Amino acid sequence: MAGEPVEGTTGSLLATDPATGEEVGPAFGLVDAAQIEAATRAAEAAFDAFRSQSPAERGAFLRRIADNIDEIGAELTARAVRETGLPEARLEGERGRTVGQLRMFADVVEQGDALQARIDPALPDRLPAPRPDLRQAQVPLGPVVVFGASNFPLAFSTAGGDTASALAAGCPVVVKAHNAHPGTAELVGQAVARAVADSGLPGGVFSLLFGGGNEIGQTLAADPRVKAVAFTGSRAGGLALMRTAAARPEPVPVFAEMSSSNPVVILPGALTGDAAEDLARAYVGSLTLGAGQFCTNPGLVLVPATPDGDRFFAAAERLVSEATGQTMLTGPIASARTAGADSLAAEPDVDTVATGSAGPGPNALAPMLLATGLKSFTTRPRLQQEVFGAVGLLVRYPADGQSAEALADALAEALEALEGQLTATLHAGPGSEDDAVVVRRLLPVLERKVGRILFGGWPTGVEVTHAMVHGGPFPATSDPRGTSVGSLAVHRFLRPVAYQSVPDAFLPPALQEANPWGLNRRVDGTVAPAEDRA
Amino acid sequence: MAGEPVEGTTGSLLATDPATGEEVGPAFGLVDAAQIEAATRAAEAAFDAFRSQSPAERGAFLRRIADNIDEIGAELTARAVRETGLPEARLEGERGRTVGQLRMFADVVEQGDALQARIDPALPDRLPAPRPDLRQAQVPLGPVVVFGASNFPLAFSTAGGDTASALAAGCPVVVKAHNAHPGTAELVGQAVARAVADSGLPGGVFSLLFGGGNEIGQTLAADPRVKAVAFTGSRAGGLALMRTAAARPEPVPVFAEMSSSNPVVILPGALTGDAAEDLARAYVGSLTLGAGQFCTNPGLVLVPATPDGDRFFAAAERLVSEATGQTMLTGPIASARTAGADSLAAEPDVDTVATGSAGPGPNALAPMLLATGLKSFTTRPRLQQEVFGAVGLLVRYPADGQSAEALADALAEALEALEGQLTATLHAGPGSEDDAVVVRRLLPVLERKVGRILFGGWPTGVEVTHAMVHGGPFPATSDPRGTSVGSLAVHRFLRPVAYQSVPDAFLPPALQEANPWGLNRRVDGTVAPAEDRA
Repeated sequence: MAGEPVEGTTGSLLATDPATGEEVGPAFGLVDAAQIEAATRAAEAAFDAFRSQSPAERGAFLRRIADNIDEIGAELTARAVRETGLPEARLEGERGRTVGQLRMFADVVEQGDALQARIDPALPDRLPAPRPDLRQAQVPLGPVVVFGASNFPLAFSTAGGDTASALAAGCPVVVKAHNAHPGTAELVGQAVARAVADSGLPGGVFSLLFGGGNEIGQTLAADPRVKAVAFTGSRAGGLALMRTAAARPEPVPVFAEMSSSNPVVILPGALTGDAAEDLARAYVGSLTLGAGQFCTNPGLVLVPATPDGDRFFAAAERLVSEATGQTMLTGPIASARTAGADSLAAEPDVDTVATGSAGPGPNALAPMLLATGLKSFTTRPRLQQEVFGAVGLLVRYPADGQSAEALADALAEALEALEGQLTATLHAGPGSEDDAVVVRRLLPVLERKVGRILFGGWPTGVEVTHAMVHGGPFPATSDPRGTSVGSLAVHRFLRPVAYQSVPDAFLPPALQEANPWGLNRRVDGTVAPAEDRA
Repeated sequence: MAGEPVEGTTGSLLATDPATGEEVGPAFGLVDAAQIEAATRAAEAAFDAFRSQSPAERGAFLRRIADNIDEIGAELTARAVRETGLPEARLEGERGRTVGQLRMFADVVEQGDALQARIDPALPDRLPAPRPDLRQAQVPLGPVVVFGASNFPLAFSTAGGDTASALAAGCPVVVKAHNAHPGTAELVGQAVARAVADSGLPGGVFSLLFGGGNEIGQTLAADPRVKAVAFTGSRAGGLALMRTAAARPEPVPVFAEMSSSNPVVILPGALTGDAAEDLARAYVGSLTLGAGQFCTNPGLVLVPATPDGDRFFAAAERLVSEATGQTMLTGPIASARTAGADSLAAEPDVDTVATGSAGPGPNALAPMLLATGLKSFTTRPRLQQEVFGAVGLLVRYPADGQSAEALADALAEALEALEGQLTATLHAGPGSEDDAVVVRRLLPVLERKVGRILFGGWPTGVEVTHAMVHGGPFPATSDPRGTSVGSLAVHRFLRPVAYQSVPDAFLPPALQEANPWGLNRRVDGTVAPAEDRA
């Protein structure tokens, strides 16, 4: 906490190996309300020093975190495997993603466009009145609370995307560790704390807290020093944080990434020849990847009730039957998957098509494939509820003997009935004019419903780039104007401040006439590239 | 409504001339719940057609609205004078600001940077896996409800900044007219509706509703088709809308601009020589401008208890005593000013320094000047409550016989105790090293508290430019990441969508390889200016 180890006072927490159910030491002490307040006070106290860093200093700080995480790689992987049941190769890859993400934000900070410097020079001769000099730059919101996610113990947790983007913005961060991987969190937290100290920053720039139950989350979201909340997790958890943050004397934004079924629409033209079998193989691979524990898991696939569609259906049925369950992250997550799948399977007009085999250990549930018809799906909102895990729902739609226009209308109606989603995927035949008619009708619907539209492929890979959007309308997230993956994520934690007639000596460097940080700045509405960039 | 006149069903509304208390015809019919729903349904139905306009088409549409408003200029001014009691010259100026604002947003739309196009090209040879083509652009949120403001019947009402920026984003707009100026609203609404029709757009792009009480506002904010709310008005009104929008099954953002006392800190060095008298004159001018009915009215002035400060104090006292009240916008606003001023004056340690003369008519309240000491102000939050109108509170701070550092600390403590504000203003002596010490200490505090920092001058002029921020932390606004004045305002109504591996033929024009709209686009994180701009 704020660079110093602190002994929790309200009990302790042991990790559980989900592959065996065994407890794993050491014990992590849980904080009390006074300790939470100490962490947010330290974050507040560190804010002005942290936000006044130059782009070069902030970039170096972020790179130091990445280097420190790379240094503990082997130990970190071993601990994370133990706590999450995820395979070693996956965790090695996730560490690469995590440090790559930190270095991307270092690039973004050093490049400086995120400050969005704007200058409208004075017009002393303007009539009827002169225009004053006006300048604008983005400043950080203040201390941010980040909730570690269960399903990405590295990339969406202690030093994951939310933390990296908040630090990149200049916001001190208080992380509430996910109780499923406390040892992993602690290792990463120490790596961050070392980077804070080695950068000469006050310790309050970063704290990592362990706490029991949901109360610590509510306490953090209600803390008056906290100016934004970032969360990845369940819909119930995100909604609770949104309510708390909205009910504060000073409401603050919550960026919660919650719930998505990630519909995939396979159009008739995409299933010709060998494609049906290949697509089914790719689908089941995406559905069962990481035990289906991805926010972008393809929970819904719309497939035509045609001979080609039947081949896809039969192949998917066979492949899921042959699939073996992988260990899920925690016992409660596995229980929730069982309850969610049972509830979906018990709905009228939903058939259980295939059930794979359970894997070894208590939490390696068998993958499942369910099916329903388009009409039931369109009219019954319960059928679009996300089941977190390897449980897929195939929605068969009639496609033979109707025009492309009629098909487009029927599919558009089904997609209109969807809640907001992180992603939607269209598979269309490259040369099919009929498919193109449907695509043109569906794209505007999807643009209103989702954060990312894919053509072909499967949604489970989320690239960390400048154009990525991992976000979307409610309930996919609490604020469709943000993304939690990709460089745009930094903008969630920034707000604009204008400076009117402020003398150069008092202006922040981003806005000084000499442009000491070498920024691209928007002058009178048009970006003027820096003449002399470092 | 949606381009067609509709007869209200639930009673009617007459304007009142606040200068005389007389009712002014004609009567405007008030809508019922079904009519509200019809308006939002029409907005939703118009959304896809409206948002698919090219930048050139959208720009032409906004210019057409401006032209139509210019055309009815004389009639509009006459009606607005009658309904608001504001002087003709002010309303002429406000019309200029309104059409200028529409044309600025036309420039912004045509220039295209607001779409923030981003392209990360595919990397087919990347290892261990290829990177897909990823593209991102901003899309509009959907139908927006705008609440007309009482104090700017043109620039913050029917076709004011919120409407202009929402339309610029591509969002259909439903305006709830302010009941204080229905005739003004109707004239402007017809000008907008003509532009909608002449641009070949569906009528649902714009509707103007008249309604009684607060219920219509809550109904609109709760309407599932509405995707954002923009409001300028009282804190109670803004908070009610925030609550309603947060409690919806699908919560939506509310951009409420509510409450600000706009602190002005006059440092000792700014008061030497003739400056005290000049500053006092400028202060009282800003305080009483438009009967003090500006969001940025300087309600709080911190002034040193020094001989120079006493000269400022005495001059302000004299000038307010000599000032005559102007007609306020409505009877209820005048009553609220009376109640607020009485309540403030009744606080312990608050002295009534000067009271001017009431003007003619029922609502031309006398300007008032109150005073208190720094310690009382710092410790008693009630003293910073905004009184909407020409009521100023002078806060005298001890300045003689203490170091610049001690003064800086005392003032910083007072400013730390403030709620979020739209503006803060510093007056410092140009050559004063002591003042500079204080300024350096206060600037970081102000950056955390306000949306716009001024050096010298007074906050009541809000330029409509690219670098302006008319926003700030709660309760100045409901979302400090926005502004309701200036070109940045359009971003409130946009959200990002990513397109992964989408064939060029299906991409929106902003992201097509040939760049048909000639946009500056960010490629792999760096803005690549369009090679061939139209």
